[in-house]
Amino acid sequence: MTSSSSRIPVAILGATGVVGQRLLALLADHPVFEAAELIASDKSAGRSYADAVDWRLPGEIPRDIRDRIVRPLDTAAIESPVVLSALSASLAQDAEEELARRGKAVVSNASAHRMDADVPLLIPEINAEHVAALAAQRRRREGPGFIVTNPNCSTVAVAFALAPIHRAFGVRRATIVTMQALSGAGIPGVPSLAIADNVIPHIEGEADKIETEPRRILGRWSDDRFEDAPMILGAQVHRVPVSDGHLAAISLETDRACTPEDAAQVLREFRGEPQELQLHSAPERPIHVLSGARPQPALDRSRENGMAVSVGSIARCPVLGLRLEALVHNTIRGAAGAALLNAEWLHARGLLDAAVGHRAGGSR
Amino acid sequence: MTSSSSRIPVAILGATGVVGQRLLALLADHPVFEAAELIASDKSAGRSYADAVDWRLPGEIPRDIRDRIVRPLDTAAIESPVVLSALSASLAQDAEEELARRGKAVVSNASAHRMDADVPLLIPEINAEHVAALAAQRRRREGPGFIVTNPNCSTVAVAFALAPIHRAFGVRRATIVTMQALSGAGIPGVPSLAIADNVIPHIEGEADKIETEPRRILGRWSDDRFEDAPMILGAQVHRVPVSDGHLAAISLETDRACTPEDAAQVLREFRGEPQELQLHSAPERPIHVLSGARPQPALDRSRENGMAVSVGSIARCPVLGLRLEALVHNTIRGAAGAALLNAEWLHARGLLDAAVGHRAGGSR
Amino acid sequence: MTSSSSRIPVAILGATGVVGQRLLALLADHPVFEAAELIASDKSAGRSYADAVDWRLPGEIPRDIRDRIVRPLDTAAIESPVVLSALSASLAQDAEEELARRGKAVVSNASAHRMDADVPLLIPEINAEHVAALAAQRRRREGPGFIVTNPNCSTVAVAFALAPIHRAFGVRRATIVTMQALSGAGIPGVPSLAIADNVIPHIEGEADKIETEPRRILGRWSDDRFEDAPMILGAQVHRVPVSDGHLAAISLETDRACTPEDAAQVLREFRGEPQELQLHSAPERPIHVLSGARPQPALDRSRENGMAVSVGSIARCPVLGLRLEALVHNTIRGAAGAALLNAEWLHARGLLDAAVGHRAGGSR
Amino acid sequence: MTSSSSRIPVAILGATGVVGQRLLALLADHPVFEAAELIASDKSAGRSYADAVDWRLPGEIPRDIRDRIVRPLDTAAIESPVVLSALSASLAQDAEEELARRGKAVVSNASAHRMDADVPLLIPEINAEHVAALAAQRRRREGPGFIVTNPNCSTVAVAFALAPIHRAFGVRRATIVTMQALSGAGIPGVPSLAIADNVIPHIEGEADKIETEPRRILGRWSDDRFEDAPMILGAQVHRVPVSDGHLAAISLETDRACTPEDAAQVLREFRGEPQELQLHSAPERPIHVLSGARPQPALDRSRENGMAVSVGSIARCPVLGLRLEALVHNTIRGAAGAALLNAEWLHARGLLDAAVGHRAGGSR
Repeated sequence: MTSSSSRIPVAILGATGVVGQRLLALLADHPVFEAAELIASDKSAGRSYADAVDWRLPGEIPRDIRDRIVRPLDTAAIESPVVLSALSASLAQDAEEELARRGKAVVSNASAHRMDADVPLLIPEINAEHVAALAAQRRRREGPGFIVTNPNCSTVAVAFALAPIHRAFGVRRATIVTMQALSGAGIPGVPSLAIADNVIPHIEGEADKIETEPRRILGRWSDDRFEDAPMILGAQVHRVPVSDGHLAAISLETDRACTPEDAAQVLREFRGEPQELQLHSAPERPIHVLSGARPQPALDRSRENGMAVSVGSIARCPVLGLRLEALVHNTIRGAAGAALLNAEWLHARGLLDAAVGHRAGGSR
Repeated sequence: MTSSSSRIPVAILGATGVVGQRLLALLADHPVFEAAELIASDKSAGRSYADAVDWRLPGEIPRDIRDRIVRPLDTAAIESPVVLSALSASLAQDAEEELARRGKAVVSNASAHRMDADVPLLIPEINAEHVAALAAQRRRREGPGFIVTNPNCSTVAVAFALAPIHRAFGVRRATIVTMQALSGAGIPGVPSLAIADNVIPHIEGEADKIETEPRRILGRWSDDRFEDAPMILGAQVHRVPVSDGHLAAISLETDRACTPEDAAQVLREFRGEPQELQLHSAPERPIHVLSGARPQPALDRSRENGMAVSVGSIARCPVLGLRLEALVHNTIRGAAGAALLNAEWLHARGLLDAAVGHRAGGSR
Repeated sequence: MTSSSSRIPVAILGATGVVGQRLLALLADHPVFEAAELIASDKSAGRSYADAVDWRLPGEIPRDIRDRIVRPLDTAAIESPVVLSALSASLAQDAEEELARRGKAVVSNASAHRMDADVPLLIPEINAEHVAALAAQRRRREGPGFIVTNPNCSTVAVAFALAPIHRAFGVRRATIVTMQALSGAGIPGVPSLAIADNVIPHIEGEADKIETEPRRILGRWSDDRFEDAPMILGAQVHRVPVSDGHLAAISLETDRACTPEDAAQVLREFRGEPQELQLHSAPERPIHVLSGARPQPALDRSRENGMAVSVGSIARCPVLGLRLEALVHNTIRGAAGAALLNAEWLHARGLLDAAVGHRAGGSR
Repeated sequence: MTSSSSRIPVAILGATGVVGQRLLALLADHPVFEAAELIASDKSAGRSYADAVDWRLPGEIPRDIRDRIVRPLDTAAIESPVVLSALSASLAQDAEEELARRGKAVVSNASAHRMDADVPLLIPEINAEHVAALAAQRRRREGPGFIVTNPNCSTVAVAFALAPIHRAFGVRRATIVTMQALSGAGIPGVPSLAIADNVIPHIEGEADKIETEPRRILGRWSDDRFEDAPMILGAQVHRVPVSDGHLAAISLETDRACTPEDAAQVLREFRGEPQELQLHSAPERPIHVLSGARPQPALDRSRENGMAVSVGSIARCPVLGLRLEALVHNTIRGAAGAALLNAEWLHARGLLDAAVGHRAGGSR
């Protein structure tokens, strides 16, 4: 790993998968980070990236990546001080912990450590203060390494839709029905014959994540532990024949009266640290509030380069009080872009300095 | 209109539309009814059926229908004693009332008269006793004519899923999120470019029907009026890129404790008069309870020739207590098959006799 | 394997795949054959069929098959005298030859032996006389066993479209462009993300089969060898996002002048032995000639239970003289139904008697 | 119409259609042209653009266009010196001629005047010299007005694929099979139910355009008339369920031997005036030559902002000698982008000066 630029070198774990591809595309001209190490499965290792990957994004593989040799997952061999992980949960479990122990700043899209007692499940617009949990991580690990995670792709839509309403009116409970895109399952993912002219009312493990992660995100770090938001969530999940963009139909009950207009206003006005800090990947408006028969995956998933969540069809619900539809580009704001924004935010807040310095020192 | 058979001649209103086509396909070898008059818009009138129709069903146009001349909607000219109506709501409003006044038994799929104070909104497995409302119709109209309607296509899925649970445990409220097929919008219907790789979170007028019709269906006829079931329903509706089959994700709260196993049992055991009477179009089991990641439109919409509703993914809901997924073939059990089954049931119960006799007398 | 019926027991190789499923569905009420042994991969072996299969067909698994235990591929253990093979080419290569040596009548959908020097590549409407090659097989093998194959799914559409024209006018050359359905790749087959909103201009090995198999089929068995029809074929193949039904756009040049009307007439009048013998699976008319913007997969693939090929859009081609579009249901007439019809035809012609008798003798 | 910028004001005819929308999106930050007048059908006229349009593109309506009032088609009222026409052929016939008579430079995507005896059917990379026909137009019309057209969307793919090969090796004849996207039919266009899980082997008038337009484009202007290239083309056209991107499978015969490698080389090296002039909308490489199973609509349609045509799967054809697949983004390089590039090229060559000056004079 050599880099003549002043950008921070980053190792990409799971570089050939759908999320890894998005990460590399987003990093192509990144002002802060540079894709320095490409790590993938043993099947891909040793081959050039262009040869190993089944590139699924429009446009071509970023030029400087094409001929880079993909390496196997060997935590001891990784040199970059920052690691962006798009590993499967099973691989991530040990590898990410090991990398953190080795002093790496691990910014992960994997689900393995999301619910750990001291790992921030971070959406910097919503719960930047959860970063306080890193102190707890540091206590049980020596050195500058840590793990920060971003949520499940559908959770991102739900968390953004609920956060402003929760702050202003208190969300007591919500039913969530998702219609999720094919890219969420990656490659090979869902067999085309299984989803042709069809909807599948099940995605393994997904409902559970949607019912638990938003409570963590909307909760707080207090007395050295996470305290979940006291809301009850119920999710029914579906795979639909759409390439990108997870849509969630949500009905919710609030503590204090919240009209559709109230909800629209707090959603529209919502901003967070990434906006204040004008981070490279941050959308100007994290939530786009739409009127009419919206949001629609084909029309709205790419708002602000896929980094804005769209909310629309806000109306009274006869059952729970309020209902709305939320959409997220599942592989951008719901995965690769979420991880990258987390890394940018950590960098802007100086939280990568120790790891970067550590490496600089270590490699001398 | 001449018919040498002993089958009851039927006029099909809206014969060239998607529902009209299904009706004609279902009537092709019907033991009781015969498609005697084909009525469609002025644009189609005067042409042979094969020439006027954009036939969208697999297989060919039934042979005896191909060369039949389509006639315009002229209520005075209709001779058949029984009328199956697949008209749009706006056309149905006056035409169906006029036909009933002229002594016809109008069995309608149109929404125009569904919520009329004395018109049964009939699913004979569920609310056969609503037929008592015909007495009220007779009081305000002379002669043997009447109107009976079947519900909106999505309502059928919801009503079947709720009916057995409501009877046994009392349904208090439910959130309903539908994922509806393209055939529900007919031809031309949804532009293909609008739904390609997309989901549209809106169908005009649909949510309102789903929130009101099941309450009527699950309510009762009492003291000469309909009394709605005291449940609250909330619906969010979506068009998905699927040809046939409306799927509904339902969360519901019951008066008395109902486990998923309880729900599965009452759903599985549910039967009604069409099963007892072994009506030609009646499914053996009106509700198929499925295990695994089901129901799925592509796999389950055609159960029992599209006349059975499928229910699956029954589980506890953290928010409302119980959740499940229900699927209906929207143009068969949700429309054409529903109307035809209503006609068969009315015939089996002798309720067409007056209209048929009236015509026989009248035409001599 | 026990069977109290008088039907001929059949072993299904590859019983859990897409073609195997179709075979079992077609055999559910078959008058001649009975699915007696279900053979699949080691992964499935030992489990009940319902447990092992990812059933992709509308409707339920045939009742008498559900609990049948799937067995691994062990040629020595197969008892049924007739074997229907839906194996992959690599497995079929040795297994089918071994089974033939063991006296089995192997009727195969696999490509492994299609171009063998003494194996009929059979479409009984077109080249029933190729069965003479079985004599050559018998010379190199002892006993009553043999292998008969059916063509590649796309080849079936091409062969039916060309055969009547070739006989009457001589086909000199043809360009063929296919648009092939997802079920042709089976499960898992094409990843859904790869084909969503897409067309893929490649299917491994397919163009070669389409360019060679029809020449064999339309050729003749003469002097103890196959002599290919002296036509030149060129194929460009595509996967399109359609569940079932392979469409081929064909331009062709004939030896003798052939107008579109001439072509339509010979196609329409085409019949063969399966029609004469009124075989159970034989379509009344093997080729349906359609007018208008046809054939279309969604509307025409299921003609005559999927056993008829549809041809339409017949017109003059400025380049080669004549053009047309041909459609086949790829898993029925193009695979499972083709194999089963071959078996029925072999039975009707007495060509299974030796194998059946052999088994009967052998098992006593 | 007022404009404080120095950009040339342009009137957009058919501004609310799919091609009109693309034009407006492409003009949003255009260095030369400014969308000054929005013209659409009477149904839209008088409404704001945001209100009148069913905006089908990702992202939002360009801000400065949203509130612009759409005007009806009144040729006398149009002030802009340059007119970009996305009208239907029937409306374009008279309106474009009338506008040219009124001194406008009409740059049209409509088919109405493409084959006129003195109207360039222009792809500036291929047949820039056809602009000489404008002299003939000027002789029959007074003033600075003229009409220039771009080809049918599928023709663009065919013309680019054939042009370099024709120049180097002479194309004698070719069979062309297209698989065309839904956006080519606009809104409402193809009913979704008609194309769901389907392919339609017909598009009205399309085959004829593909068989004639490339001959004009690849021909020459000589002795004051167009002389078609002496090649024979045959086309079979299909609508496939893909949102954007027309794919053409082409087999062709050349005068002089042309290997796949030869073809790839001349295609890869092809450049034209738009590249030399570095026009704003010009792709760096008008033809991208791809290896592997390419081009694919989902992956390749957006190369160089949709302005590059992709060619791949180049191989020997046993029938005609050479075969390949060509892809064009049908609403960008195949329509809106083609018209805009024509306008840019006319501007760079000074051919708009007279019309612009005329207007400047006229409006003083």
